[in-house]
Amino acid sequence: MQNCAKTWSVLISRSLSHRAPCRTGFEKLIVTAQDHVSVRHLRTAETLRSRKIERILPKHDDFAERHIGPGDREKREMLSSLGLESIEQMIENTLPPSIRLQRAMKMDDPVCENEILESLREIASKNKLWRSYIGMGYYNCSVPPVIQRNLLENSGWVTQYTPYQPEVSQGRLESLLNYQTMVCDLTGMAVANASLLDEGTAAAEAMQLCHSYIGVRTVLKLPHEMDFNGKDVSGVLFQYPDTEGRVEDFTALVDKAHKGGALACCATDLLALCVLRPPGEFGVDITLGSSQRFGVPLCYGGPHAAFFSVKENLVRMMPGRMVGVTRDAAGKDVYRLALQTREQHIRRDKATSNICTAQALLANMAAMFALYHGPQGLRHIAERTHNATLILAEGVFQFLRLFHMYTFPELSVKCWFAVIFIYSFHLFTDHLGVSLDETVTERDLDDLLWVFGCESSAELIAEKMSERMKGILGSPFKRTTTYLTHPVFNSYHSETNIVRYMKRLENKDISLVHSMIPLPITWTEFANIHPFVPLHQAEGYQQLFRQLEKDLCEITGYDKISFQPNSGAQGEYAGLAAIKAYLNSKGESHRTVCLIPKSAHGTNPASAQMAGMKVQVVEVDKDGSIDVAHLKAMVDKHKANLAAIMITYPSTNGVFEENVSEVCELIHQNGGQVYLDGANMNAQMMGAKGLTHATEIAILNANYMAKRLESHYKILFRGTKGYVAHEFILDVRPFKKTANIEAVDVAKRLQDYGTLMIEPTESEDKAELDRFCDALIAIRQEITDIEEGRMDSRVNPLKMAPHSLACIASTTWDRPYSREDAAFPMPFVRPENKFWPTISRIDDIYGDQHLVCTCPPMDVYESPYEERASS
Amino acid sequence: MQNCAKTWSVLISRSLSHRAPCRTGFEKLIVTAQDHVSVRHLRTAETLRSRKIERILPKHDDFAERHIGPGDREKREMLSSLGLESIEQMIENTLPPSIRLQRAMKMDDPVCENEILESLREIASKNKLWRSYIGMGYYNCSVPPVIQRNLLENSGWVTQYTPYQPEVSQGRLESLLNYQTMVCDLTGMAVANASLLDEGTAAAEAMQLCHSYIGVRTVLKLPHEMDFNGKDVSGVLFQYPDTEGRVEDFTALVDKAHKGGALACCATDLLALCVLRPPGEFGVDITLGSSQRFGVPLCYGGPHAAFFSVKENLVRMMPGRMVGVTRDAAGKDVYRLALQTREQHIRRDKATSNICTAQALLANMAAMFALYHGPQGLRHIAERTHNATLILAEGVFQFLRLFHMYTFPELSVKCWFAVIFIYSFHLFTDHLGVSLDETVTERDLDDLLWVFGCESSAELIAEKMSERMKGILGSPFKRTTTYLTHPVFNSYHSETNIVRYMKRLENKDISLVHSMIPLPITWTEFANIHPFVPLHQAEGYQQLFRQLEKDLCEITGYDKISFQPNSGAQGEYAGLAAIKAYLNSKGESHRTVCLIPKSAHGTNPASAQMAGMKVQVVEVDKDGSIDVAHLKAMVDKHKANLAAIMITYPSTNGVFEENVSEVCELIHQNGGQVYLDGANMNAQMMGAKGLTHATEIAILNANYMAKRLESHYKILFRGTKGYVAHEFILDVRPFKKTANIEAVDVAKRLQDYGTLMIEPTESEDKAELDRFCDALIAIRQEITDIEEGRMDSRVNPLKMAPHSLACIASTTWDRPYSREDAAFPMPFVRPENKFWPTISRIDDIYGDQHLVCTCPPMDVYESPYEERASS
Repeated sequence: MQNCAKTWSVLISRSLSHRAPCRTGFEKLIVTAQDHVSVRHLRTAETLRSRKIERILPKHDDFAERHIGPGDREKREMLSSLGLESIEQMIENTLPPSIRLQRAMKMDDPVCENEILESLREIASKNKLWRSYIGMGYYNCSVPPVIQRNLLENSGWVTQYTPYQPEVSQGRLESLLNYQTMVCDLTGMAVANASLLDEGTAAAEAMQLCHSYIGVRTVLKLPHEMDFNGKDVSGVLFQYPDTEGRVEDFTALVDKAHKGGALACCATDLLALCVLRPPGEFGVDITLGSSQRFGVPLCYGGPHAAFFSVKENLVRMMPGRMVGVTRDAAGKDVYRLALQTREQHIRRDKATSNICTAQALLANMAAMFALYHGPQGLRHIAERTHNATLILAEGVFQFLRLFHMYTFPELSVKCWFAVIFIYSFHLFTDHLGVSLDETVTERDLDDLLWVFGCESSAELIAEKMSERMKGILGSPFKRTTTYLTHPVFNSYHSETNIVRYMKRLENKDISLVHSMIPLPITWTEFANIHPFVPLHQAEGYQQLFRQLEKDLCEITGYDKISFQPNSGAQGEYAGLAAIKAYLNSKGESHRTVCLIPKSAHGTNPASAQMAGMKVQVVEVDKDGSIDVAHLKAMVDKHKANLAAIMITYPSTNGVFEENVSEVCELIHQNGGQVYLDGANMNAQMMGAKGLTHATEIAILNANYMAKRLESHYKILFRGTKGYVAHEFILDVRPFKKTANIEAVDVAKRLQDYGTLMIEPTESEDKAELDRFCDALIAIRQEITDIEEGRMDSRVNPLKMAPHSLACIASTTWDRPYSREDAAFPMPFVRPENKFWPTISRIDDIYGDQHLVCTCPPMDVYESPYEERASS
Repeated sequence: MQNCAKTWSVLISRSLSHRAPCRTGFEKLIVTAQDHVSVRHLRTAETLRSRKIERILPKHDDFAERHIGPGDREKREMLSSLGLESIEQMIENTLPPSIRLQRAMKMDDPVCENEILESLREIASKNKLWRSYIGMGYYNCSVPPVIQRNLLENSGWVTQYTPYQPEVSQGRLESLLNYQTMVCDLTGMAVANASLLDEGTAAAEAMQLCHSYIGVRTVLKLPHEMDFNGKDVSGVLFQYPDTEGRVEDFTALVDKAHKGGALACCATDLLALCVLRPPGEFGVDITLGSSQRFGVPLCYGGPHAAFFSVKENLVRMMPGRMVGVTRDAAGKDVYRLALQTREQHIRRDKATSNICTAQALLANMAAMFALYHGPQGLRHIAERTHNATLILAEGVFQFLRLFHMYTFPELSVKCWFAVIFIYSFHLFTDHLGVSLDETVTERDLDDLLWVFGCESSAELIAEKMSERMKGILGSPFKRTTTYLTHPVFNSYHSETNIVRYMKRLENKDISLVHSMIPLPITWTEFANIHPFVPLHQAEGYQQLFRQLEKDLCEITGYDKISFQPNSGAQGEYAGLAAIKAYLNSKGESHRTVCLIPKSAHGTNPASAQMAGMKVQVVEVDKDGSIDVAHLKAMVDKHKANLAAIMITYPSTNGVFEENVSEVCELIHQNGGQVYLDGANMNAQMMGAKGLTHATEIAILNANYMAKRLESHYKILFRGTKGYVAHEFILDVRPFKKTANIEAVDVAKRLQDYGTLMIEPTESEDKAELDRFCDALIAIRQEITDIEEGRMDSRVNPLKMAPHSLACIASTTWDRPYSREDAAFPMPFVRPENKFWPTISRIDDIYGDQHLVCTCPPMDVYESPYEERASS
């Protein structure tokens, strides 16, 4: 799943001009040897020529160099093992000349980390912290400092790691299961996923699910205008409570929809549902919304977790990730990602949703918020907020009645968190909305009443409020069912307990523990800015966006950047939708064929289908590059209807496409557009030189590892000169026959070595790469032992991997290898530093057959600290 | 050792008025049942009477209640097990009526945590961030964000925990050993301690060490005026470089001192020593100083680690804590606190230093700063800072020469980080100092030159600087020896590596992982304020001090508070010094006897001796209270020379002294003063009600545990009604005879249960207390097994405790108990949550006999990740 920093993803647009086809290539993406030489030249020259003060008063520290793992000595060692003399020589051998940048990038010089923070602080001060009553999907909330500190600001949680290896991810899986349970309980639905990217995506996915095929047409109607009799409606989406704070009874509408064969989707509010009858109780099929107000800062509309829950019968159509319960090899109940076969990376051309990520960090924030407050605490917050709204509404109501302007029928029931009324100052009439949230105080209410000219105070209004002003709590909409009754939501209300619980979960998970610059998102000037504030209150944010756009344009060679999509998959969809719209606008709506090479990024096919295109697969050659002959044939076959090609660059097979310009030209000549998936593009705000260097080191690291491993494993796909790009693929398929060993066995066994299958990014140093290679070489030897009959082919360290601590420490041990071989297979894996898988190998099939996606009963789930021998 | 939050300790003064002896008691210290009743009454009344708005719009959240572990149900259960009906009843049985407060405390109502943070933010904004060139012992520094985030802001490091149990503290011990090694390397001395409280304390301790008896007289002289011929000088202290940035050759002075039988002490600067000849190379005996500029924020002069290093022959006289290398039961090299027998808690009446703490957190910050930069990095920072000073000095020099005002002979050598010159504007003459530091930039230099009217720029000055302007690097003072050559200082210069190293150390240590409010000390408005800024720049700090003083006065019933002492021990010393000065001022300098009950806090005797008093011990009775008969006899015996009595309240035996008023009166009647050690006073800024309630819960927790344990262990010292105060003592002495088991065996075995001997403070919930009791009860059963011959008396789970992971996972196991019994002795200790001691039991005697207090050679120390099998 995705970490917070990544969710500000980008869509890069430029290639839509038919008149300039030759400019639609992306030959400027990767920096080149020439560029590097010029940088090096500059450096040498500097030493001889530049200002003397730069020699005696040099930069204090270089952030880019700190971020890069290998030191100079290590770099020389790695180059030497590759038979290379310099980074330049490596680049010449790795990057085809046709795709090298012919000039230096224009970006600011690298600065030291503290300078970055200082300049961010200056930028932050340009955001203006006004009290916001805007609402509309984003609410102020009290982020519990204990959660902010130990989760949001803790690199153990904020890590860019996908829990594909459940044995070493039980902590965050448990927390996401709590999140799902919370969503199910509050919405009254049977199953929830582990969050989606945002509320808008959730709504789109709901409609997509309803329609279950491509091309939904959206019609806006008031509920009473809706007609399902034509059986041509696949779904209806309504808001409860709505943006104006109104609560309506949708029971009849849901019934009508069902009778007409349509599904009913409800966008709702988790806090409201603490006192409000949940959608699950009036027949809704899908509920969705934002969980931002459960303890996630506003951040100018930045990342939050959208929730999405459905009826039991829809579970296998649900988009996104879902955590489920299964058992491990030792028979213990454990957690993992459920129903992964739905994911696009398994059956990519069958996928109908391109959502493969979740807002894991922010879903965990929301779940911990619920744990910390518990059901009583949440109800308290909800009632308090509702009561504040009632007081304000009553005050405004009295005032307006006094002046005989407007009346508010049934305000007591209709009013939830928002007060909407009509005002007519300065000769024009319009609506004004005021949205209250958990942070509102009595003083705020007095201020608001004063602003609206009401002469009473919150206190006086409260004193006079009659029983009829009980609002929702005195209405038929009042929630009568319990929620969050599971022990996990009733055990961690003290500061000590919640910290220990979070720490316990954190320690179950392997983590890169790699903290970049402290996330400034927790600074109040970034955190507490509502997305709809006037621009002059958000000048800091605007400046950040402008700077980021400028640098991204420079890196990519494009003219404009859209910051709208908030994930790579969203970017794909947006890019293809733009291409489609462009073709349609030219009257070429018949162009619907999207070519996708086998080497492309996994979400591509689903995105193409969602954008209304027909996917056609293009073969790759033995080097992993696009098979140009096959491409030509495909273009020829589909040229009349060709819309686009999608290319991932560098490809997931880890090679740079040498003939990429040729490919672009071919597509353009045939009326199509090129979509580039830059998922592997490295743009960490280090300055141009730093960026160049980071790219070089990532390539060096990958080639060094490939070199070390090539005599032990077959390496699939290399460039023409025998080098790889930033990653590569080992072929383990032969071992299935020779030793009954599959890729999964190798991956699980790597856990015993305390390492995971990782991309050798620039931040890893040589020692870490060597440990990884050592582990893989040792595992190859273990495979040989099986192949040559020295080790049993069913009971061996690979098949039994990973080895949990419980397994190693048990009295009984009846395996043909020792405890030490199991747990400490290399000298660098030692008791004092080993990361232990907390469970044995996961059983995926059992979990899919016995789907459980909420917290299992107490006896399984129970905190290990709850038990106690009798005294 | 001490955590950061605690170092703002307080000295409470009031009892010095001889005219109001009856007011010198401390009957107002602990809140009483009556007070609580009135609070309860208030609460009930509130519900009936108070403003309606408070009912429908109550406080959002109650921080005090979050901080308190047990919930309402748990409180009822605990009371019931004690046969009590209410907290009030418990208080009546616990607190003698004579010492109860008869009124409610006047403090602000509790507020929720976010309100506290908001008000702190407002206070912070009153501090003004000006660029500071003040120097004088405090310097701006670039706190590496990666260290700030993962150490200073990480509750795993910032924990109020003393590493008395080295088996579960190897991480912070290793880091402190790094610190000691760094200090030794940079100062050129043989041994260093793990830091002292501040530079002033370090200087005082150095003089104390020189004199080695009481009553040092301080004489200020210029070096050339010093005369050691009289053999009446015990030590000399000089500064190198000095406050004005001058570097002098002290070789001759050191020689003279040695010939006169005196020790030479040098206050110095760690960053200067990166380019400057270290004191160890010209015969200095003791070096000391502040390590603040190694990555610790200024914090208005807040906590920093003072370093202190000595020649080999002085090691056993060194004050403070020292980490040393020893071996564990498995023969492995490990770390622990060395030479603990020197500490006052072992030989309390022999102690000559009351320093029992270190600035562990800030010493660790400084050590990590050195690790992150390494020797080259530190030299780079030092040279850069020095060069900046040279440029500024040259600029000012040229300017002043131009106007023929003053010349600066040998400025190039004398000038280190500071520029001192004489100006004569506005008809008066004075010195002006400018101190530069690592954060200085070229722009800063230009600004400074402009301020001083110099028309040149830093760039132009640098261009024209001749070879003679090499400063220290071109002088005989240039450092020629290497430092920080150990691998630990040369392995973690990348962000990834330092984070992983810090995390690896953190994970070796048991930690309370209990984070209170996020420390606002890292907010720039608190962090970057120099202690000597004009008051109007520090109004935020002033406001905090005023508020804290007001609340502490209210809690203690005294009139004024001094914030000067920065530890409890410093407070003792300051209190006794004040008493002594008061008596002297009255012409009663003969009064030197200080009575100290056996139940008093451990540092008391040393403090009394340092203040020039003679300690006389007073017996305690079987309940742990002061033996009044013995006290009367002692007072009678010493009344002519009686200076003071020191009382710890509540006592370390965990009882409230019932006759404390009587004791005070007795002392006052005989011309003495009373010093109260309030080490157990609980004042966490929760408001009066919260404070009262926290005290009640701490007492409830202690009594609940005593009740559960009383049928298994003998409980020493109880109050007259059979209850204990906030802690209590179990008597394990009988087991020595019956089972060969000592207290240390029980303490080590508790590690296997994943728990430590803790004070049952108010923040622990009932489940945690129960686990602790369960562990102790199970251990009692294990002792019984030995007593009754079912378990060997030499090889058993207690004697072999703690059991490390290496021990449990080894192939061989030849013990008369199982692996599970060793490692998982209770159901609540499970593989997935167990905290493992990283080593076997420590061998203290070996370590004292083979004292090693710097990083051991590479093969022992080496990072486990450094090794690699050949590929």
